[in-house]
Amino acid sequence: MTSDPLPSPLDRLSRVRVVLHSPRHPGNIGAAARAMKTMGLSRLALVMPERFPDDEAYRRASGARDLIDAIVQHPDLDAAAAGCVAVVAVAARPRDHAPVSMPPRTLMPRLLELAAHGEVALVFGNETNGLARADVNRCDFLTRIPTDAAYASLNLGAAVQVLCYELRSAALAAAGTDGGALPGDELDSPLARHGQVAQLLAHAERTLVALDFLDPDRPSRLMERIARLARKARLEQEEVNILRGVLAAAEALCGRPAGGT
Amino acid sequence: MTSDPLPSPLDRLSRVRVVLHSPRHPGNIGAAARAMKTMGLSRLALVMPERFPDDEAYRRASGARDLIDAIVQHPDLDAAAAGCVAVVAVAARPRDHAPVSMPPRTLMPRLLELAAHGEVALVFGNETNGLARADVNRCDFLTRIPTDAAYASLNLGAAVQVLCYELRSAALAAAGTDGGALPGDELDSPLARHGQVAQLLAHAERTLVALDFLDPDRPSRLMERIARLARKARLEQEEVNILRGVLAAAEALCGRPAGGT
Repeated sequence: MTSDPLPSPLDRLSRVRVVLHSPRHPGNIGAAARAMKTMGLSRLALVMPERFPDDEAYRRASGARDLIDAIVQHPDLDAAAAGCVAVVAVAARPRDHAPVSMPPRTLMPRLLELAAHGEVALVFGNETNGLARADVNRCDFLTRIPTDAAYASLNLGAAVQVLCYELRSAALAAAGTDGGALPGDELDSPLARHGQVAQLLAHAERTLVALDFLDPDRPSRLMERIARLARKARLEQEEVNILRGVLAAAEALCGRPAGGT
Repeated sequence: MTSDPLPSPLDRLSRVRVVLHSPRHPGNIGAAARAMKTMGLSRLALVMPERFPDDEAYRRASGARDLIDAIVQHPDLDAAAAGCVAVVAVAARPRDHAPVSMPPRTLMPRLLELAAHGEVALVFGNETNGLARADVNRCDFLTRIPTDAAYASLNLGAAVQVLCYELRSAALAAAGTDGGALPGDELDSPLARHGQVAQLLAHAERTLVALDFLDPDRPSRLMERIARLARKARLEQEEVNILRGVLAAAEALCGRPAGGT
């Protein structure tokens, strides 16, 4: 723990990355930027956009062109979420066996608490298919905006608007009620980063194969369950180190070196 | 009062009229229709639209074309709000000397209560100027979406989306289902009982000793850390079984039987 004061709830909005994964229409990129800026968010990232840069993104961004200019593009979700202490998948549909799921009104205040400790990300899938299952499973949390079952087709810009509004509402509530401290602000050690948890899971998979507990050739839900468990636990860096130590000790006794990272 | 039962909170959404006053862009009419339908609202009315009907409204409405077909046009606000038990002006800016003002999160549940007794209306001004002062003063309540002071330019469709989302969230909360109950909210298996977690931890301790990772004679904070981690994860019974399977596999390869429970 450092002795720096935690950033205020409203300041934490600048630690939220909005990641649009393979968006099809540049107009939606612009709408997302505008939606973000009205709520005080500023960091927009793209993974494999179909058309970008594009004039239509600027046109729909209106007064939020500065967010378009500052867009960072990434080759995949892991790169876009690198270094984040919490990554939220925004689902268009209910999902089974996905990360821990909470409605926006519950999860956005929690995400803001986590943003005290580092950057966080909200990941939106593309307009047609949403997020791929493998990408959802790379995230720590899942949320879904509660739409009417008869017509759940929320526009991408509108979904960004609703979640940014929830984040801002959570920040205003926290700033207004108790001077800015949020319940989850205290930790024993820093939260693990996105890449550290991914490496831990890869290490666990190698060890389970070495233990003959996991058949590497048979697709299994086991690793998915373990990933869900790891994310649910909100691992701290020190805990990741302990668990990797255990895995290395198990591998050593199996007579197989760890390899990889 | 009649003796009819009150409509359910979700049914009351069909009693909410969304009134767009002199909208300039037909695309925003379509976006409003889509935003409404995703949240279970259906009644869209226009006062003096600049261009309507227009193909762009249909295009942006996407799957909510039925709401466009059902649009009612009125010559002024009083006609659009005729018969309503409560009319809310949605302001783009703070206003002096306006009707009773509340933030959306406070006012939308109140509006839904009022909708038990008759129709209600949400009135949005045009994209450039918002609502005229005289029209604001014709309304019973005023609300303003809490935007960032540095960029308050919420798109009209986005403003409709946020308020319809608040209405639906209020209805779901009142109906007793939580705004976003998702399949992933449910546990895959029952939560582990206290004794099951204690047995898991004892098993883990034996295994860590077998792996020479833990010295049984030296008091260590390691098991304390692992216990904290296990409790933080809110383990399910199935997860306990998976972890005990992993521990048993590690022990078997160490050539030492598990023993104990």
